[in-house]
Amino acid sequence: MTTESSSIIIDGKLVAKKIRDEIASEVARIKDSTGIVPGLAVILVGSRKDSQTYVRNKKKACEEVGIESFEASLPEDCTEEDIIKHISDFNSNPSVHGILVQLPLPQHINEEKILNAVTIEKDVDGFHPLNIGRLAMQGRDPLFVPCTPKGCMELLHRYNIEIKGKRAVVIGRSNIVGMPAALLLQRANATISIVHSKTKNPEEIIRQADILISAAGVPNLVRGSWLKPGAVVIDVGINAVDDSESPRGYRLVGDVCFGEASSVASAITPVPGGVGPMTIAMLLSNTLSSVKRIHDLK
Amino acid sequence: MTTESSSIIIDGKLVAKKIRDEIASEVARIKDSTGIVPGLAVILVGSRKDSQTYVRNKKKACEEVGIESFEASLPEDCTEEDIIKHISDFNSNPSVHGILVQLPLPQHINEEKILNAVTIEKDVDGFHPLNIGRLAMQGRDPLFVPCTPKGCMELLHRYNIEIKGKRAVVIGRSNIVGMPAALLLQRANATISIVHSKTKNPEEIIRQADILISAAGVPNLVRGSWLKPGAVVIDVGINAVDDSESPRGYRLVGDVCFGEASSVASAITPVPGGVGPMTIAMLLSNTLSSVKRIHDLK
Ligand SMILES: NC(=O)C1=CN([C@@H]2O[C@H](COP(=O)(O)OP(=O)(O)OC[C@H]3O[C@@H](n4cnc5c(N)ncnc54)[C@H](OP(=O)(O)O)[C@@H]3O)[C@@H](O)[C@H]2O)C=CC1
Ligand SMILES: NC(=O)C1=CN([C@@H]2O[C@H](COP(=O)(O)OP(=O)(O)OC[C@H]3O[C@@H](n4cnc5c(N)ncnc54)[C@H](OP(=O)(O)O)[C@@H]3O)[C@@H](O)[C@H]2O)C=CC1
Repeated sequence: MTTESSSIIIDGKLVAKKIRDEIASEVARIKDSTGIVPGLAVILVGSRKDSQTYVRNKKKACEEVGIESFEASLPEDCTEEDIIKHISDFNSNPSVHGILVQLPLPQHINEEKILNAVTIEKDVDGFHPLNIGRLAMQGRDPLFVPCTPKGCMELLHRYNIEIKGKRAVVIGRSNIVGMPAALLLQRANATISIVHSKTKNPEEIIRQADILISAAGVPNLVRGSWLKPGAVVIDVGINAVDDSESPRGYRLVGDVCFGEASSVASAITPVPGGVGPMTIAMLLSNTLSSVKRIHDLK
Repeated sequence: MTTESSSIIIDGKLVAKKIRDEIASEVARIKDSTGIVPGLAVILVGSRKDSQTYVRNKKKACEEVGIESFEASLPEDCTEEDIIKHISDFNSNPSVHGILVQLPLPQHINEEKILNAVTIEKDVDGFHPLNIGRLAMQGRDPLFVPCTPKGCMELLHRYNIEIKGKRAVVIGRSNIVGMPAALLLQRANATISIVHSKTKNPEEIIRQADILISAAGVPNLVRGSWLKPGAVVIDVGINAVDDSESPRGYRLVGDVCFGEASSVASAITPVPGGVGPMTIAMLLSNTLSSVKRIHDLK
């Protein structure tokens, strides 16, 4: 099969690999010169298969770059106090430089309360409202930027895509992707618009975007005809759609009709292999920044 | 002189008066039933004429609604520690329910450090990054919303202007007006775009706005031809322009060419008499919410 494509395919897998290599050498350098080993703690509650997979992948990625990983696995029926106890231990453990609570948490747990328990100095997910507030404010800097939006920005940077003065549209306004992505684009001096489920005629705005970041979680939401010719498209969506030809019975697609879009956009991320691999790379990067900040290393 | 005008003039002075009356009766009710008197503390550093005027106006507005006002005036050459000492005292003073640091502070003072010293429970200005973070996040609520953007929203509400599903454009992205105004419009389910000094062809986006909030501080920036017919215009700008006919040698105008705009917009705020009077009214309103939250009153 041949696909007609005029776009540059933004290779997140390759960029993420490069970043992980860079991190591995930095980690080795720090260890050699100071003896300090960066540490990342993950808290997993319950036994969701997908969460277990994510946690396993994170541990594996840590090992590969020399970051020590810590894990606390709690049963589905644990209490908020149990989780907070573990967070407090990690907060005060000097070998731990980043703490991550795998979401979603079970229904009976107050997510806000749990996330607020992570000390802001080790909030490598960047989800603490104090970090988000600083991200939103001029003249302030967050200690950590949420991993997925940070990964989107990193792709734009590594492909030398100019952001300043450009029109940028973000689809989605979630706390973990859409909203921080929009704030980051604005910090880089793009003019931002944010599309969400209550937006009327989204295609009218999307067609004005020089840069589009889509994080709606809706397969094939964005058609080729919705894009400005030459736009740069970062597709965060990871959506399972039925596919009888696949051994698993489904395949993963983004929010953007890739086939249509790739003949209109100047550059586009594929799904999978675009933003996906960047998220873990940025988690490692945040853990590295954290150890450097805590120990005042260069 | 007659001005042709098809717009509703949004009368901020009248609305603010009404709100102050509402607050006065609530304050009286609380005092009668519980003996509690709401208190607002203002910290003024240095002797800027404009800051002194603002502080005087705030005290006067407090008195008129029955809110007790506290003031700490510090000399221009005071230290950060001096200011923080006063903030700490107000933080722990049970008669004080709101604390406001009059900006700008002298050059040698770190504004961020000072503002962060105000306990979030009494941050009636809503400038604490934790409040801004919560404002930006879905599923979180700030304890206080910054007064000027809150005043803009209140004007839209009191004039029954629908926000949900509308295109809203905010000019300006400052921490105290533009950025929180955009976040508030988004929370009300508008689709927002944010224009700033790096935006190219701002008129193209502004022309799409059903609701425009302008907070650029640039006189006559927005021309009538930049507006969509029927748009609602909230002009936050307060700009002094030379006027030899005025006894003071200048007059105040907004960011929007009022004459041109008022024949295109469906509703518009004048300057002065639009957003201006709302800011202090919202400060009183935040102080009232604070006393109610602290004492768990209805
Ligand atoms: N690559 C990666 O590593 C990651 C990928 N993802 C993927 O990104 C996507 C988004 O994730 P997340 O932000 O957590 O999802 P959420 O469900 O939390 O947010 C989705 C957002 O999209 C908006 N939206 C939903 N439907 C539409 C529509 N038809 N038109 C316009 N806007 C719409 C929603 O609007 P409203 O606010 O009005 O409801 C909401 O703001 C998912 O596919 C997820 O799997 C997420 C995290 C990491
Ligand atoms: N009614 C009231 O009670 C109040 C009124 N005001 C008034 O509101 C106005 C804004 O105040 P404030 O937010 O503190 O001001 P700031 O100077 O902090 O912010 C101005 C914002 O406008 C943007 N801007 C400047 N020039 C242009 C331009 N030509 N085109 C597009 N955007 C532009 C700037 O962009 P960039 O970020 O790129 O620099 C910046 O984001 C002022 O006139 C002020 O007096 C303020 C507070 C209260």
